Amino acid sequence: MASDKKIAQKGSKPKARLPRGFRDRSGAEIAAERRLIETIRGVYESYGFLPLETPTFEYTDALGKFLPDVDRPNEGVFSLKDDDEQWMSLRYDLTAPLARYVAENFQNLPKPFRRYQTGLVYRNEKPGPGRYREFTQFDADTVGSNSPAADAELLMMVCDALEALGLKRGEYVVKINSRGILDGVLDAVGLPVEERERRGIAMRAIDKLDRLGVHGVNALLGEGRKDESGDYTKGAQLSDEAAAKILRFLEIGGVQGDFRPVLREIVGEDAKANAAIDQLFEIVRFCRENGYGEDQIAPDTSIIRGLDYYTGPVFEAQLTFKVKNEDGQEVVFGSVAGGGRYDDLVARFTGQQVPATGISIGVSRLLAALTSRGLVGEVKPLVIVLAMGDTVSSFRLAKELRAAGIRAETYVGTKKIPDQLKYADKRDAALVVMEGDDERAQGVVTIKDLKLGAELSKSVESRAEWVGARAAQETVKREDMVAKVLSMLGQ
Amino acid sequence: MASDKKIAQKGSKPKARLPRGFRDRSGAEIAAERRLIETIRGVYESYGFLPLETPTFEYTDALGKFLPDVDRPNEGVFSLKDDDEQWMSLRYDLTAPLARYVAENFQNLPKPFRRYQTGLVYRNEKPGPGRYREFTQFDADTVGSNSPAADAELLMMVCDALEALGLKRGEYVVKINSRGILDGVLDAVGLPVEERERRGIAMRAIDKLDRLGVHGVNALLGEGRKDESGDYTKGAQLSDEAAAKILRFLEIGGVQGDFRPVLREIVGEDAKANAAIDQLFEIVRFCRENGYGEDQIAPDTSIIRGLDYYTGPVFEAQLTFKVKNEDGQEVVFGSVAGGGRYDDLVARFTGQQVPATGISIGVSRLLAALTSRGLVGEVKPLVIVLAMGDTVSSFRLAKELRAAGIRAETYVGTKKIPDQLKYADKRDAALVVMEGDDERAQGVVTIKDLKLGAELSKSVESRAEWVGARAAQETVKREDMVAKVLSMLGQ
Repeated sequence: MASDKKIAQKGSKPKARLPRGFRDRSGAEIAAERRLIETIRGVYESYGFLPLETPTFEYTDALGKFLPDVDRPNEGVFSLKDDDEQWMSLRYDLTAPLARYVAENFQNLPKPFRRYQTGLVYRNEKPGPGRYREFTQFDADTVGSNSPAADAELLMMVCDALEALGLKRGEYVVKINSRGILDGVLDAVGLPVEERERRGIAMRAIDKLDRLGVHGVNALLGEGRKDESGDYTKGAQLSDEAAAKILRFLEIGGVQGDFRPVLREIVGEDAKANAAIDQLFEIVRFCRENGYGEDQIAPDTSIIRGLDYYTGPVFEAQLTFKVKNEDGQEVVFGSVAGGGRYDDLVARFTGQQVPATGISIGVSRLLAALTSRGLVGEVKPLVIVLAMGDTVSSFRLAKELRAAGIRAETYVGTKKIPDQLKYADKRDAALVVMEGDDERAQGVVTIKDLKLGAELSKSVESRAEWVGARAAQETVKREDMVAKVLSMLGQ
Repeated sequence: MASDKKIAQKGSKPKARLPRGFRDRSGAEIAAERRLIETIRGVYESYGFLPLETPTFEYTDALGKFLPDVDRPNEGVFSLKDDDEQWMSLRYDLTAPLARYVAENFQNLPKPFRRYQTGLVYRNEKPGPGRYREFTQFDADTVGSNSPAADAELLMMVCDALEALGLKRGEYVVKINSRGILDGVLDAVGLPVEERERRGIAMRAIDKLDRLGVHGVNALLGEGRKDESGDYTKGAQLSDEAAAKILRFLEIGGVQGDFRPVLREIVGEDAKANAAIDQLFEIVRFCRENGYGEDQIAPDTSIIRGLDYYTGPVFEAQLTFKVKNEDGQEVVFGSVAGGGRYDDLVARFTGQQVPATGISIGVSRLLAALTSRGLVGEVKPLVIVLAMGDTVSSFRLAKELRAAGIRAETYVGTKKIPDQLKYADKRDAALVVMEGDDERAQGVVTIKDLKLGAELSKSVESRAEWVGARAAQETVKREDMVAKVLSMLGQ
């Protein structure tokens, strides 16, 4: 400390500021997020999923690099060298650490291993509005089962979680597609896995359907596309006919019902693709027969999910209602969760394929959606006992209130009453309790309703009304304080 | 993924392993920690403390260096350089980020600003048994009040939290001392602040009273001390008389009652030290008059707390019961929380002193203590519906059980019944529900009590007993399943 004091005296004080792309959070937002997490946790635990916590750090080689940001292959992750010269990275999702955990503990785990995990993940990306470098995910994964029941369970569980949070049927839909089918489509148009670069371009183009529309995607599947800023993106160099086939596949999109025949027509005889079609519709059948309708869980060929590691079904939970964006335009809220099957991730370590499937909820995005729906719940009202004369006695009053289940504090500063009232306003307190020396002598306390007081004083125009405004304040016997406070809080 | 596959084929698979000093946590431990955190949170919120969350990263200069590890001044913290060449560090506690937050938002905060924060903190230290580089703290701080009421409130609140967790009076004590008094004692023996090095040696010696005893500390206050391994530590070079004075101060330690006269005798006329004595006993009076006894909150001159930034009262919550250590010896559990007043920390940024006081609970240590006391609560029993024939139907059964508030899952793997039963054992399930094709045709299900079954089969010696063991299994009508499961779970 002494050396820091010296620095401060020299006038080189550090500036109090947050690192770029990080933020502080307080009060109601934290409480709302906690309720959200507890609700999801309750649903996932009721399904028998077990909690797991992996550390913030993983060895960089164990974490692997699976971020979709192919243009900056060495970015995206925060890394540092440990004392023993090994590189460690902060986790960028909860899936890569799960793969490491499963590979490390495979023998001892019950299989299928079904776990949920919630926690912060870190992206070393350029921050932007609403885009932070640290955010919370809530994942559920089932490792060790290739049964469509395992995928279906995740989808149904996410529906249950969204409804437990207060969303209604019709306000959300969990969409499902299959990479296996997409692979068949790409094979069918002459973009096999070996054509890595062109195939990658086509995949990224498809993933942009939402933003660029059919026309834009068509351009990117063909020669290429110049965007509004004049930047040119090279296309996948497909023929018009081939591009049309892909677009036809994508356009099945939101179609309801059994569209297997159209899919089979597009992929032709390709055995793998046909198996993927069967698998997709087996998952759908499973959900239907368990009572989940097309409005809740629906196949949709336009769902791609950016991550490279998916090997089969992919999922995306979308909210279907509209909200105002930053520019005041009404837009569909869109994706709040995504996932899919990744049967090769554990094999990175063990060489042995372990089937796995999972879904990850973006907690902040979901919270924003619930907030826009007024579904985040209320904070418990606060009562503040002012510090007047003997503060010990004020503490005793607050303690009595707390014993009755009321959120109550005593002012612990050293300012006088007007400042204490300002503090109470700033804290958004419902009531203040006052016990001055006179009141103490008489065995009474005064309780003031700050909201009502503020309301009444707005309309004060005459002396008579001013007297009326005193109605926001009542003096009661000390022993009646708790009952009075409860009644003034409407409890 | 393709490139990783290639790597795997070359035989250079990454090894699945945790970084040194980090750990995975699962199941019951997570559930227990969550309950612990929720309980403390409930108490702190009832006192009107607001939640705050600061990010994992802070700019290194904003974080400052206040770790007690003076021997390795450049260690202790994980740091990395951001894209713009600014150094960022992972927070090593929750106090330094609070100071940054308060300095950054001072104008807009209600004052006193009382917040709680819980989260992971990171230490770049050599890991050891039970010593991790990432762990959870739970802090409460009051910024902007120099009133002894603010300190007293924290102590009382910690008592309430410990009792809410199930600890009884007598099983814990929150001890309080004052750096101001210690300063006076050190001044009185000729170790003023200017004698930085010798004073530091003396402080660290005093802090080791628990481990080294009076004899060891005495040696370190004088010439120096050779430990069991033969390593020599240089002492503070105090005279025997001076060392005796310090030891006399420390030995007041656990003395009960009002020991102000002895303290005054030791520090003499020193005005600051006398003010510190008054302040300490004002905090004690405050607690007493609010009903907290000497068994709950007690002054103790042997409490030092290592951190450099404390400026006044220091606190330490200790658990007084004995537990077995790694060597099987009975030892007092000891410290689970610590804190104190740090009036200069915000001034690092603003140049202006802002009084502040706080206490931090070491969540893992407290959890270990509660576990040893059997106070961590039970996990909800699990029911597993086996997958037999049409799994869709098994899912419906599990869904019905969940709707009745039961934690229930369907086996989602692809193995046969004996393996499913092994899975159920590994999951520590209470019951399994079976509905084979025959049972489905008859409209019944079979429910097996795994614990009772295991118990009974241990004692199977004759055919008669084997038949008796079937009592652990019952077949009921499908519509009676939920009621039967509830009754078998004793609910």
